Amino acid sequence: MITFIDTTSLLQMDQRKRAMLINSIGGYKFISLIGTVDENKNTNLAIFSSLFHLGANPALIGFIMRPDSVDRHTLANILATKIYTINHINENIYKQAHQTSARYEKEISEFDATGLTPEYKNNFIAPFVKESNIQMGVVFKERIDLKINGTILIIGEITQLYYPTDCISEDGFIDIEKANTVTCSGLDSYHTTNRLARLSYAKPNEETKIITSLFVE
Amino acid sequence: MITFIDTTSLLQMDQRKRAMLINSIGGYKFISLIGTVDENKNTNLAIFSSLFHLGANPALIGFIMRPDSVDRHTLANILATKIYTINHINENIYKQAHQTSARYEKEISEFDATGLTPEYKNNFIAPFVKESNIQMGVVFKERIDLKINGTILIIGEITQLYYPTDCISEDGFIDIEKANTVTCSGLDSYHTTNRLARLSYAKPNEETKIITSLFVE
Repeated sequence: MITFIDTTSLLQMDQRKRAMLINSIGGYKFISLIGTVDENKNTNLAIFSSLFHLGANPALIGFIMRPDSVDRHTLANILATKIYTINHINENIYKQAHQTSARYEKEISEFDATGLTPEYKNNFIAPFVKESNIQMGVVFKERIDLKINGTILIIGEITQLYYPTDCISEDGFIDIEKANTVTCSGLDSYHTTNRLARLSYAKPNEETKIITSLFVE
Repeated sequence: MITFIDTTSLLQMDQRKRAMLINSIGGYKFISLIGTVDENKNTNLAIFSSLFHLGANPALIGFIMRPDSVDRHTLANILATKIYTINHINENIYKQAHQTSARYEKEISEFDATGLTPEYKNNFIAPFVKESNIQMGVVFKERIDLKINGTILIIGEITQLYYPTDCISEDGFIDIEKANTVTCSGLDSYHTTNRLARLSYAKPNEETKIITSLFVE
């Protein structure tokens, strides 16, 4: 049986239920921990779930902020220092990652509150999350205010990448499943994954084939 | 062992390898089939992987287009008719969904080419994908050209939702895993999921709890 909901039913729905519904119908998410510092090097760490690939050359990544929420410390830090880190969340740290979404006061670092470890390397001022297996150092490029609902699109360039050496295949594909990265659906549901297949580049009138990855040893 | 890559190494990398690398480090994706019609009701269907939740009230969803690619038919149709459908991809149709990314000529419908079935209902002019378990009817709201790399952000309002009735829980959470929705990493790797847990709303100084979902029977 299929349920059909239209705009009228959506508007009549309880606000929390509607938020849950629209968030969960929005598919699997790339959730990450974003690490920042303020001008006095106080650290901040927050989970974000609206990240998306924007381009490979230059290497751009975007994410959406809601300025009325706990996001505001992250936003202030990014605008002040122009840098941040994006850290994949794995099965071992997803509960701590989720906990960073609590409304901590500005003077409390979510690193301290959740027990995650700040890691500094290669002259990047913002903290990486040591427990994260895949990390990116990102330079702020552009802020676009989306007037339609007051959210903000932040665009950054990936200038540093870290990944487990045994997770890269010859063609440049990083096996994030092998690196234990998890995904999220809705506001609070965390999932590991099972690969069905990698499929070859699609061409008209040619059946797609399954790629057998060759990992670099 | 951890591999470190910086901007200099990225720039020296073969273009395809860099695209593969940056796409795959960009985490799990919400992939969907976007269904459109042109002004003569000719159908078009294309897979997109940069979709993201933008807000619940109004119910907004965004996605990124690359106008130099097969995306261009979808873009022209959305601008002409102001509507489109977003259809979750499940395990049974992921190969056909991937095949829609082949460069078919404008006069060829990817529905015909891949064997997926257009479905029309509730006065929505754009075709849904019958084989998809979760479907959205979307009204175009805004186009934002991202000058930084020539991509286009398309924002739409979800005005129709369809989901299996046994996949909704009391709090409004749609269990997309139960609905068989798959996720993607990189350009071509498809994955099913296994739920670790749903976690309760995070509060400072309170440990997050696991939510036991109550499904509506």
